[in-house]
Amino acid sequence: MSRIVALETTDIRFPTSLSLDGSDAMNPDPDYSAAYVRIVTDADDDISGHAFVFTIGRGNDVQVAAIDTLAGHLVGREIEPLLDDMGGTWKEINGDSQLRWLGPEKGVMHMAIGAVINALWDIKAKRAGLPLWQLLAQLSPEEIVSLVDFRYLTNALTPEDALRILRDAEPGRGERTERLLAEGYPGYTTSPGWLGYSDEKLERLAREAMADGFTQIKLKVGADLEDDIRRFRKAREVCGPDFPIAIDANQRWEVSEAIEWVNALAEFHPAWIEEPTSPDDILGHAEIARGVAPIRVATGEHAQNRMIFKQLLQADAISVMQIDAARVGGVNENIANLLLAAKFDVPVCPHAGGVGLCEAVQHLSMFDFVAVSGSKEGRLIEFVDHLHEHFVIPTDIQGGNYMAPTAPGTGMEMKAESRERYTWSGAHANA
Amino acid sequence: MSRIVALETTDIRFPTSLSLDGSDAMNPDPDYSAAYVRIVTDADDDISGHAFVFTIGRGNDVQVAAIDTLAGHLVGREIEPLLDDMGGTWKEINGDSQLRWLGPEKGVMHMAIGAVINALWDIKAKRAGLPLWQLLAQLSPEEIVSLVDFRYLTNALTPEDALRILRDAEPGRGERTERLLAEGYPGYTTSPGWLGYSDEKLERLAREAMADGFTQIKLKVGADLEDDIRRFRKAREVCGPDFPIAIDANQRWEVSEAIEWVNALAEFHPAWIEEPTSPDDILGHAEIARGVAPIRVATGEHAQNRMIFKQLLQADAISVMQIDAARVGGVNENIANLLLAAKFDVPVCPHAGGVGLCEAVQHLSMFDFVAVSGSKEGRLIEFVDHLHEHFVIPTDIQGGNYMAPTAPGTGMEMKAESRERYTWSGAHANA
Repeated sequence: MSRIVALETTDIRFPTSLSLDGSDAMNPDPDYSAAYVRIVTDADDDISGHAFVFTIGRGNDVQVAAIDTLAGHLVGREIEPLLDDMGGTWKEINGDSQLRWLGPEKGVMHMAIGAVINALWDIKAKRAGLPLWQLLAQLSPEEIVSLVDFRYLTNALTPEDALRILRDAEPGRGERTERLLAEGYPGYTTSPGWLGYSDEKLERLAREAMADGFTQIKLKVGADLEDDIRRFRKAREVCGPDFPIAIDANQRWEVSEAIEWVNALAEFHPAWIEEPTSPDDILGHAEIARGVAPIRVATGEHAQNRMIFKQLLQADAISVMQIDAARVGGVNENIANLLLAAKFDVPVCPHAGGVGLCEAVQHLSMFDFVAVSGSKEGRLIEFVDHLHEHFVIPTDIQGGNYMAPTAPGTGMEMKAESRERYTWSGAHANA
Repeated sequence: MSRIVALETTDIRFPTSLSLDGSDAMNPDPDYSAAYVRIVTDADDDISGHAFVFTIGRGNDVQVAAIDTLAGHLVGREIEPLLDDMGGTWKEINGDSQLRWLGPEKGVMHMAIGAVINALWDIKAKRAGLPLWQLLAQLSPEEIVSLVDFRYLTNALTPEDALRILRDAEPGRGERTERLLAEGYPGYTTSPGWLGYSDEKLERLAREAMADGFTQIKLKVGADLEDDIRRFRKAREVCGPDFPIAIDANQRWEVSEAIEWVNALAEFHPAWIEEPTSPDDILGHAEIARGVAPIRVATGEHAQNRMIFKQLLQADAISVMQIDAARVGGVNENIANLLLAAKFDVPVCPHAGGVGLCEAVQHLSMFDFVAVSGSKEGRLIEFVDHLHEHFVIPTDIQGGNYMAPTAPGTGMEMKAESRERYTWSGAHANA
């Protein structure tokens, strides 16, 4: 038996606003940041659990304070009972009635819970000597179901539904694991498409993306329609008529505006329109989906919890579901999200980028492929080539595919020297 | 001209869990708390702006940290331009793209923005020498519309819709102001209905509520159906067959469970069922509304922002809308909420109780009566008789009516000695 002796937090900020990496219609000057947590035990194994909430600068300190407040749930406790029942652990922390008032299950407090849960998963995976995707994919359907909180889901997904989905996917697990280790999992790249980039940079990066083997790119849109038409046309010229090019409005539009704007870009055949309006507007997304069909609607990087995904699926509001590794209540809630997607037969194409989101979310897609949906069909993980050098196990992209990590853990551990160097001192231009 | 020189915050917690005041099916042991803010200027007028976010204990420090992070938007700035354009001020603070990532527009960060906005309104009202309701009710329809952010609302409520609603209500403003000052605004009380109370206490408090002139009471339900049937029967025996008795499940149920449970209580004719399930589940509320009709569904105290209210109304999910003074982005967003309710012709019956929520929210209902809906029909403000003694201008309840405050300000100012005495030291049983 060992005990949790510390929950250490760090306010880490990278001055990305200086280069306009990550600029879009709603986020002109992000400083990619991590409210970082490290869970330390007294075990004699050199293992600690790492995770973070991704933010874009100001307020990262608030996010750190929210993680700090969870120390009372963990420090001093034996860790094995927590790791042995991660479903119960999630329910306990997420169910703290006083903290729940601050959401419930949304925003700063919910993301903090997600980080702490993910840090526990990091310890569990490292102790098992397995990457997270493989640890999860080796659990029995019953064990996976026990990780999920079905509260508020049962009118769309019951434990029995989940068990059936997981049992249906059980036979091919071994073969799919082999395929995954050999081929990897397809990625697409957003690197060419940031609004702050010149047309020349867009064209060059689009060309490079294709040469690198990516099978889709994405352009940011929504600031100016004429600009969007010009940029989309240039991307089409570079990529040809059939190459998938998605577009992303980052919540910029009203419902009717989204329908008009997307239809004005329809001649360029967007692979999907992402975040057309408020991430809270389920009915609005459904209206947009009807108004822009057959162009598909995608969203999820700001979907606050499983209840939002449930409704987006119930309302036929999305054709592509974009989970995020650090927005919801951690691995457990994302398993619920994957099961919802499987129930409604909607492909999951995770949001990534930022700092460390690629490293983290690939495990969820790979687990999905092996043990949940059983398919890579129509599924891609977003890739943005920023800040990977700061991670102990950076993503390994080959020919446009995420190669399956084999090192133990969740992938969220940042190098100690990077953590130290980018610990925030209040000195950035925009922070 | 004067400048904002400080944004002071205080972590205030009352040990209410010791008496089980405020216990319900989801919140067994709340310590009613306030993340309190005071905005100080260098004006020579002794006026400071007070406001708070209501929480129930743990995490109040996180909420305080979120308010602190907004100091950068305000301290050092001239206050008059901010007060003269409160619509622009709201948009500026709410539109901070980096802070927006932490919600967007929900949870800890959004409530912090609400508190700061409300503290500015407190200064504006005090400088005008008017209670907030009257300050707002004296604005022209155009000025009121300028306070509202219509982003993400225009498929349900446009500025033109809002202007029409406000102009329609303009003729009777003077007469309704007189009526309000003479009669007050009807309240209902939740004091008898907390789950932690004995049947005897329930019966005694229900009797007292009727004797005091309240025209509705509310019972907490959802922990145990047999208990609920027994308690509702006792309340009916005390109150008679026709007295309105609402019930409140505090988010306890699944959708199908809500429908079954409420129908099992239908013989007692609930005036409404409040918070039957997750506050995020718009489609679930709509399903419940269809399943329990003609019993009305009410919700809103945890509705994170105007987009949720918009959808609840669009989906015919609620027949009673329950705004909260400290959950959303402040007075400005609540004006949007009042206009949405008027557009959909749904009565607003605010959530109150906690600490200071009655003092605060009454201003919004009174403004609604004078200048928006123009009606008190079917409208009641919740009243819970706790902790009013800590406020500079406590609610004045006469014959079950909230008497209109005449003192300048928003009503959110807590007495200095109470703030000092209940500043949190980490000493409470449950905190």
